Amino acid sequence: MREVAILEIGQTPVSEHWDKSLLELAGEPILQIFEKTGISTVDSIFVGNMMTGSANHQLHLGAYIADWVGAGNASAVHVESACSSGGSAFRAALMAVSSGEADTAIAVGVEKMTDSPSAEITAELATAADADYERDMGVSFVALNALLMRRYMEVYGWKKEDFAGFSINAHANGAHNPNARFGFPITPEAYMKSPPVCDPINVMDAAGMSDGAAAVLLVPVEKLIKGKKFVTIAGSAAATDTIALQDRRDMLWLSAAERSAKEAYRQAGIGPADIDLFEAHDAFTIIEALSLEASGFVERGQGPSLADPAIIGPKGKVPLATMGGLKSRGHPVGATGIYQIVEAVLQLYGLCGENQVPGAKIAMTQNIGGSGSNVYTHILKINEPRTFQNN
Amino acid sequence: MREVAILEIGQTPVSEHWDKSLLELAGEPILQIFEKTGISTVDSIFVGNMMTGSANHQLHLGAYIADWVGAGNASAVHVESACSSGGSAFRAALMAVSSGEADTAIAVGVEKMTDSPSAEITAELATAADADYERDMGVSFVALNALLMRRYMEVYGWKKEDFAGFSINAHANGAHNPNARFGFPITPEAYMKSPPVCDPINVMDAAGMSDGAAAVLLVPVEKLIKGKKFVTIAGSAAATDTIALQDRRDMLWLSAAERSAKEAYRQAGIGPADIDLFEAHDAFTIIEALSLEASGFVERGQGPSLADPAIIGPKGKVPLATMGGLKSRGHPVGATGIYQIVEAVLQLYGLCGENQVPGAKIAMTQNIGGSGSNVYTHILKINEPRTFQNN
Repeated sequence: MREVAILEIGQTPVSEHWDKSLLELAGEPILQIFEKTGISTVDSIFVGNMMTGSANHQLHLGAYIADWVGAGNASAVHVESACSSGGSAFRAALMAVSSGEADTAIAVGVEKMTDSPSAEITAELATAADADYERDMGVSFVALNALLMRRYMEVYGWKKEDFAGFSINAHANGAHNPNARFGFPITPEAYMKSPPVCDPINVMDAAGMSDGAAAVLLVPVEKLIKGKKFVTIAGSAAATDTIALQDRRDMLWLSAAERSAKEAYRQAGIGPADIDLFEAHDAFTIIEALSLEASGFVERGQGPSLADPAIIGPKGKVPLATMGGLKSRGHPVGATGIYQIVEAVLQLYGLCGENQVPGAKIAMTQNIGGSGSNVYTHILKINEPRTFQNN
Repeated sequence: MREVAILEIGQTPVSEHWDKSLLELAGEPILQIFEKTGISTVDSIFVGNMMTGSANHQLHLGAYIADWVGAGNASAVHVESACSSGGSAFRAALMAVSSGEADTAIAVGVEKMTDSPSAEITAELATAADADYERDMGVSFVALNALLMRRYMEVYGWKKEDFAGFSINAHANGAHNPNARFGFPITPEAYMKSPPVCDPINVMDAAGMSDGAAAVLLVPVEKLIKGKKFVTIAGSAAATDTIALQDRRDMLWLSAAERSAKEAYRQAGIGPADIDLFEAHDAFTIIEALSLEASGFVERGQGPSLADPAIIGPKGKVPLATMGGLKSRGHPVGATGIYQIVEAVLQLYGLCGENQVPGAKIAMTQNIGGSGSNVYTHILKINEPRTFQNN
């Protein structure tokens, strides 16, 4: 199994890209990578996407995108795991390179949601849940998360305002990210006054439907150019949980997040205290709280105790959503997992300006599909220049 | 990179499974494998499927199926490349095991097409083609293949009846396969008289929409039990071509099939003459002819010269569709690539009864997505018992 590095990144702004076709959107971050590296094709392309089959009437995204960017010799496939599709495409690309099947692999995430009426997208997002036992009962995906948040508040005694800090921090960081869709700061009052989506989840608890695409280029470490710092994947793990919330032994514990994080820590030989920044899956503030608990950053039931910009800001102890997170940067679902990786890489190279986490050496990303049903955790590390065998 | 073996297989009959949910269908071949091997979970599950997102309003199939079969600790993801989704799921599972990320991986293919009106499925199959430049011009997926067949007949001078042998052979073999959906023999007259789907493609040129699921269990060779014959993957390759037919330099040459087959031959250290049986992608007789040419079994433009049961029957020189192929066994699109592997394994173990290819040692499968836009070629080999290090 070969050690794998992230050689280059690309991203589009997260926005309403009504002026771009699905192909133009998906191609943009790949062509950025081609331009920056001088390469014109790769061995493999893995496309993370959830819902183009229904929202854009286009499947077969692997060949479709490979064709568009001129990588006609690449093998190319579409990988889907609901909102963690980006994370799963990244992990598939990693396995292609680590196994030796590919020497160059691109993982690209793309989603184009705002062309469709939002009621339609709401129905499509519900395909992440159980069609027979959840969706057909009339519950939407945000409703499932609202049930979870209500229960959490009941059991652990937290109030609505205790979650505000997550959203305030995300928006404070997103304000400095030119690629953020909702790049403006918010006040505690704005959080409390924002309209409900599905009580107790209000607009400021929820990441917005968006269009966007991001990509990374993976290569084996031994093919890197000597004399430069490089980012490697020190841990990669995936785990699943039941699809339906009511099937869980403990609804308030994301056991797949726990298993996935523990395995990633084991591979990297570290623990949560060693993580310099954590790009968590803040699709909803409740999921962010549960992810922090399951990943070992805080005790069970204590997630909201971290919801303080002094703790989770770029200069805090557990920096979160450092470029705005899903909440402020935006959540084009199948692309989100790749945006997280892209932002972690920028942090490790010290390129995040006002949002820079000082001296960041180790970053963690966690991408969650469904209500914690599919979790991808990755740990990235910046390495000092090395001389490689082939140089 | 570890050598990988196929330890066990499972399959449902290909049929109209109106009495089974998507989950029951997908779970069946996995539970067969669990029962036969005595295991109750695996490290990873890769689900090959094309269109459940729109046809069954269910995505997130990885976690959904893992949950259902009780493999709650597995990582699980859905892999899609149109009609080659099964082949791409198989290759993803192979990379997971060869890279060391998984010690046990299941590739399961599933498709449930007959619940939906066929006009709807026709529209969904067209998502394999280019939404902006093919589908939106009003061309269906079968129409694209009909254009291809018409052009091929024009250029090379073949007549409609010259393709009959492919279909007759497939049905002759399918008649002995209890899992075949159209398991009855047909005559040359029946072929010629069958109603047109899209001229020159008639019903007997085209594989039928179907429901079905098949699965295989992959393990590293070093974990096998000594003293038994075992099947390994000697070659695995994927390649893409343009999505749209009109973008190709040569519309009558499946260049992705050529590149994918050549790379698989190179890995296995063999050529087409060494292949004992070939499970080709006979979704349409024209695609079968082009696949035979691109894979080196016959000269360019001469595909139909092989369409003779004496040549392509189980006792012939190039056995094709040995258990009925897509035509007679049926074509549940995302499952087809796995059915091909399952049938190749049965041949290599000598379990195909009346359809057995005598002394089969090396089998090839080729799974094609779109109009030759995405091609997965696998070469399987039966090995004599070996003693492994860990025994």
